[in-house]
Amino acid sequence: MLNSDTICAIATPHGMGAIAVVRISGPESFSIIGRLFHTNGRPFNVENAVSHKAYHGHIIDDGEMLDEVLVTLFKAPHSFTGEDSAEISVHGSVYVQQKLLQVLIAHGCRMADAGEFTRRAFVNRKFDLAQAEAIADLISSESEAAHRVAINQLKGGFSKELQVMRSKLLEMTSLMELELDFSEEDVEFADRSQLKALLDETLSHVNRLKDSFRLGNAIKNGIPVAIVGQTNTGKSTLLNALLGEDRAIVSDIAGTTRDTIEETLNINGILYRFIDTAGLRETEETIERIGIERSYRKIHEATVVIGMLDGTKSIENVILAAHEILERSDLEHQQLLLCINKVDTLDDQGETLLGQLRQDLDNDDIMVICLSAKHHFGLNDLYSTLKHSQPLASPDATLVTNVRHFEALTHASEALSRVKEGLQINIPTDLVSQDLREALHYLGSITGEITTDEVLGSIFSRFCIGK
Amino acid sequence: MLNSDTICAIATPHGMGAIAVVRISGPESFSIIGRLFHTNGRPFNVENAVSHKAYHGHIIDDGEMLDEVLVTLFKAPHSFTGEDSAEISVHGSVYVQQKLLQVLIAHGCRMADAGEFTRRAFVNRKFDLAQAEAIADLISSESEAAHRVAINQLKGGFSKELQVMRSKLLEMTSLMELELDFSEEDVEFADRSQLKALLDETLSHVNRLKDSFRLGNAIKNGIPVAIVGQTNTGKSTLLNALLGEDRAIVSDIAGTTRDTIEETLNINGILYRFIDTAGLRETEETIERIGIERSYRKIHEATVVIGMLDGTKSIENVILAAHEILERSDLEHQQLLLCINKVDTLDDQGETLLGQLRQDLDNDDIMVICLSAKHHFGLNDLYSTLKHSQPLASPDATLVTNVRHFEALTHASEALSRVKEGLQINIPTDLVSQDLREALHYLGSITGEITTDEVLGSIFSRFCIGK
Repeated sequence: MLNSDTICAIATPHGMGAIAVVRISGPESFSIIGRLFHTNGRPFNVENAVSHKAYHGHIIDDGEMLDEVLVTLFKAPHSFTGEDSAEISVHGSVYVQQKLLQVLIAHGCRMADAGEFTRRAFVNRKFDLAQAEAIADLISSESEAAHRVAINQLKGGFSKELQVMRSKLLEMTSLMELELDFSEEDVEFADRSQLKALLDETLSHVNRLKDSFRLGNAIKNGIPVAIVGQTNTGKSTLLNALLGEDRAIVSDIAGTTRDTIEETLNINGILYRFIDTAGLRETEETIERIGIERSYRKIHEATVVIGMLDGTKSIENVILAAHEILERSDLEHQQLLLCINKVDTLDDQGETLLGQLRQDLDNDDIMVICLSAKHHFGLNDLYSTLKHSQPLASPDATLVTNVRHFEALTHASEALSRVKEGLQINIPTDLVSQDLREALHYLGSITGEITTDEVLGSIFSRFCIGK
Repeated sequence: MLNSDTICAIATPHGMGAIAVVRISGPESFSIIGRLFHTNGRPFNVENAVSHKAYHGHIIDDGEMLDEVLVTLFKAPHSFTGEDSAEISVHGSVYVQQKLLQVLIAHGCRMADAGEFTRRAFVNRKFDLAQAEAIADLISSESEAAHRVAINQLKGGFSKELQVMRSKLLEMTSLMELELDFSEEDVEFADRSQLKALLDETLSHVNRLKDSFRLGNAIKNGIPVAIVGQTNTGKSTLLNALLGEDRAIVSDIAGTTRDTIEETLNINGILYRFIDTAGLRETEETIERIGIERSYRKIHEATVVIGMLDGTKSIENVILAAHEILERSDLEHQQLLLCINKVDTLDDQGETLLGQLRQDLDNDDIMVICLSAKHHFGLNDLYSTLKHSQPLASPDATLVTNVRHFEALTHASEALSRVKEGLQINIPTDLVSQDLREALHYLGSITGEITTDEVLGSIFSRFCIGK
């Protein structure tokens, strides 16, 4: 049984601090506290203790005082896990933290597995699986945007959307299955046109959620921005300028960068994943050629493509290079941002070049700016262009950020498409109903209404210990 | 004014964890909480809130939910600082922690200086200065012994001893100063023999505390153990074996180690500071000679000296080398432990060598053991010998671990010695009384009864932020 034992773990970050918090949860929580905790020189009276109240006292084990602490009891079900649990706030010495765990274990606790507190909370229905996963996302969020998505998911908006869809589909399924019971009589309880309308609506909702994964994932892991262009246009110099450090090796020698280099950077609350790629050119060199192939692949994966152009080249050359990058990008799904680099050496010609290039491209969707990566000139233009290039969802829109959810939505979408097709060509109701059941299963698996121990194990093992 | 503003800081260790705790303290604590904290979808009613109770809710700033949190208020004077203060327990994301600090600062908090919470607690007489310093020691304690010393000091045992001494000295001083008021009448209110007895008692107590610093400091920073011996006896190999890693470079070439290498190691709850030194030999090489001079100095500073002997040498050689180490050590203040190394190559001769060496030395205070540093043989003997070699104070004895206290005790001891001398040679009462006042001043400075802002600033700046 999951909840038959009492678990403990350090809940605060590792290391030394002013204080640290050790959490315990499970049936023996209070009796263990009763044996170790002393207030006013007397053993703590756990029986009469009030839930949610911070008591000041000492942890005394075997006659030896370990630390002066604050202990707060949380009586079931009014705790994070839904079980009897306690938080012990100790002085943040590494020694004290470790020693307290040892003492707790000696008194019957077990070290918690990764995510076990949250898993117990899920089992006790404190929240659903998608919300539990939002907690892990919240803890690891590195930007304002990622944090907001996690908070929204934690609030349960996503879960509620799924629930509404499921209940509609469930109603539809029961009507169809009712037909099956009366199949001899050839009745139709479920109005086919109503069914089709509901199906269309649900399918488009599922697809919208599924498609939000591209953006959701980008927000969580950083929006992929590929920096591409011919050799020696200053791609690595730009990456270094953005990061404010010498991350990539730069030199005047064409083809310095071979491996793609990725670095994340938080700009105005949004996380970007910048990808510096090998310069595009015809080459006989094997390693460089592999690098160039990778560059093409990275262009494909990116949401934003920064095309670097060497402003010291002739206008014909610059336009040619721009078109080369243009051909490789997918303007329908990607934002292209062309940068005329090295303008510090150009006086006024930079602006002229900018005008000519814009005129040639004749496409308002393609941004063109001037910059000098070497002298950090024009970076603010780049930042603000990046900010506007990203179609950020409205704060309240549900974004799918979890690959498990994305997969479940994909499966659900496929099943619903089969249902739609089946209704169109009038295949037997029992087959249609089976596909509906499958869609229900996948949608239910996201919030954990349908789940297995194995799935739970794999989800919670990715949490940190103490959560 | 120190307490006129409201301070905030992250109290838990830096980084990501399941939860983190942000502390605020000062007059505006509750009103700031009232503006940011919401329970059950409504602004938190701070007025009616109960002290020491953990409230569950959300931090909402500018309409945006930052996190789901637990908030506990501590009403003055029943808080760590003695002021109105609060602890906000948030999800342990780095983003959330930083953002919450920003929000608190926007609402009128100020980032706390290092140690400012403890300083406020001291100013509000929650504990004395020695106890405040014990908190810093407790947090940084790395071993059971260091932890125990800090806990004892935190419990106030040291402070009480000082207080008893001070009140006796104070009584003595007032009697002497009464004499001064009646100096025309040539009376002696203070019985000189009683005075002398009290003085002797106090002086010996002060000196006992002062002398405990050697051990106290050793426990706090690690007991210094110098590993010495001729070149190529396996000193660096022993250090590596003790640490379980390749810390020092070892080779068959005599004189490999030049710089002294120091590493601390916690063995059975006691912290040792092992010092690997350059091998002792006559050499023309300048760098090596400097290293050897340092070795001699390190022998002097150590509490324990491990003398490494090469068991593959002749018995005469081994005895000669042992005497060389013996001459350099100070058996009155140091524990000498001789190790016959390389016994893996010796069959039974190791034991014979051991017997002969013991017989030659004829001194029970010098431990002799056999080991093979290379094959980790005999290390347990070494550990248990180390453990017994250290005259550990009884758990309840007061140990001075703080260099500031040591200096104050040294000054007090000097002043009391002058008083004693003055009484013996019958110097004027007013001069004696002045020295007594000085002793009182220094003893009082330890617990902070007499203190300056500058001293406080220097003490608390060494704390971590959030404490």
